[in-house]
Amino acid sequence: MHIDILTLFPEMFDGVMRSSILRKAQEAAAFNYQTIDFREYTANKHYKVDDTPYGGGAGMVLMPQPIFDAVEDVAKKSDKKPRIVLLCPQGETYTQQKAEEFAREEHLVFICGHYEGYDERIRQELVTDEISIGDYVLTGGELGAMVIIDSVVRLLPGVLGNEASASQDSFSNGLLEHPHYTRPANFRGMEVPSVLLSGHHKNIDDWRKKQSIQRTFERRKDLLEKYPLSDQEKDWIKDFEDDK
Amino acid sequence: MHIDILTLFPEMFDGVMRSSILRKAQEAAAFNYQTIDFREYTANKHYKVDDTPYGGGAGMVLMPQPIFDAVEDVAKKSDKKPRIVLLCPQGETYTQQKAEEFAREEHLVFICGHYEGYDERIRQELVTDEISIGDYVLTGGELGAMVIIDSVVRLLPGVLGNEASASQDSFSNGLLEHPHYTRPANFRGMEVPSVLLSGHHKNIDDWRKKQSIQRTFERRKDLLEKYPLSDQEKDWIKDFEDDK
Repeated sequence: MHIDILTLFPEMFDGVMRSSILRKAQEAAAFNYQTIDFREYTANKHYKVDDTPYGGGAGMVLMPQPIFDAVEDVAKKSDKKPRIVLLCPQGETYTQQKAEEFAREEHLVFICGHYEGYDERIRQELVTDEISIGDYVLTGGELGAMVIIDSVVRLLPGVLGNEASASQDSFSNGLLEHPHYTRPANFRGMEVPSVLLSGHHKNIDDWRKKQSIQRTFERRKDLLEKYPLSDQEKDWIKDFEDDK
Repeated sequence: MHIDILTLFPEMFDGVMRSSILRKAQEAAAFNYQTIDFREYTANKHYKVDDTPYGGGAGMVLMPQPIFDAVEDVAKKSDKKPRIVLLCPQGETYTQQKAEEFAREEHLVFICGHYEGYDERIRQELVTDEISIGDYVLTGGELGAMVIIDSVVRLLPGVLGNEASASQDSFSNGLLEHPHYTRPANFRGMEVPSVLLSGHHKNIDDWRKKQSIQRTFERRKDLLEKYPLSDQEKDWIKDFEDDK
């Protein structure tokens, strides 16, 4: 996979892209990336990439010309049309399903504005996906791009050492994870549930499944609505409801 | 505001914390931060911070001891008890309201796991807030901490140059933003809507308001349900429904 990142702040990416899984994935040739300072594409003689909004108001707006030209230039790298992702609060809310979709692409292009809005013609005519990573306001699109890149790259074949890890993640089966415990069995008087020390695998599996359902019930009923419950799981939920 | 970040990957933060608004906010003394490699707190003679899960299964689990000791050490810096934030997929979904709440604190502590799960006793007895930045799986909590820090710091007094900018953001009034346009008025045949060139401020305001309602209606009906609609806005929505 190749990733192009259009940003006015390329140095923001260094620490994240050079650490941990993202570093290892580049070493394993699972993906490579390039940051593109789209200021270098501006036709404006003062090197500007933004201007005041038509109709007035606060803030600046990214001009279409530098973004169109930069995207068209990086798109030449692939035979196939790349996915062109605009990070913005107005976009579709990012989910694990979208991560899995992006992980099947060969070429992703991210457009990161910073402070400014985007000229509407960029949204309408250039981008394939407008994405928001959540309902909060960030200074720029850079952190959103890093979040998407991390979530996508870890799904690429061979990137995660332990293949079991990705499939046991929260959200991958539609439920929140059950609690985890490790040593010591007693920490400052707080004890590990005895079932986990029993060595009885069937009981451990049942306990974990029930905890996973209970945690999802208590914290994220919206996820439970989409999950196909077994009869036993429906009984558990009746118990949780009676306990409240 | 002081921020402590517990992480095994402190170098991930460099690029983001030294750029743009976060750099300026530190220069203006609006906040300062420290990364703490909590491996330095482990009592384990092999310098380990994680271990296999009780009850078996894939993956590793962060042990309670290094995290408890590191958090208790950094908490001494404040007279007041800090907010202790755990980044995890099982947490409360982060929103702009939570950003505003955190922005009123004096001391935030972030706990960033990486690959591993957290021992349940950390959740139950140590943290004040379990937060997820969205329904997707990341390699670690570091990007989540950066997202929260960026969204919180830009709300601190004096950080954003233009005070109008924060209050006009998407989500701050409960609606998605209206479209923006800047020069040129005609770009490759794509024209700016004529109302924005009219100089008629009342018409421009009405157009923007209607576009903002329409965009929210089309993309995020869930936001519209919480928004107090005026009679005119209700009429517009009837029009959008009829147009579909």
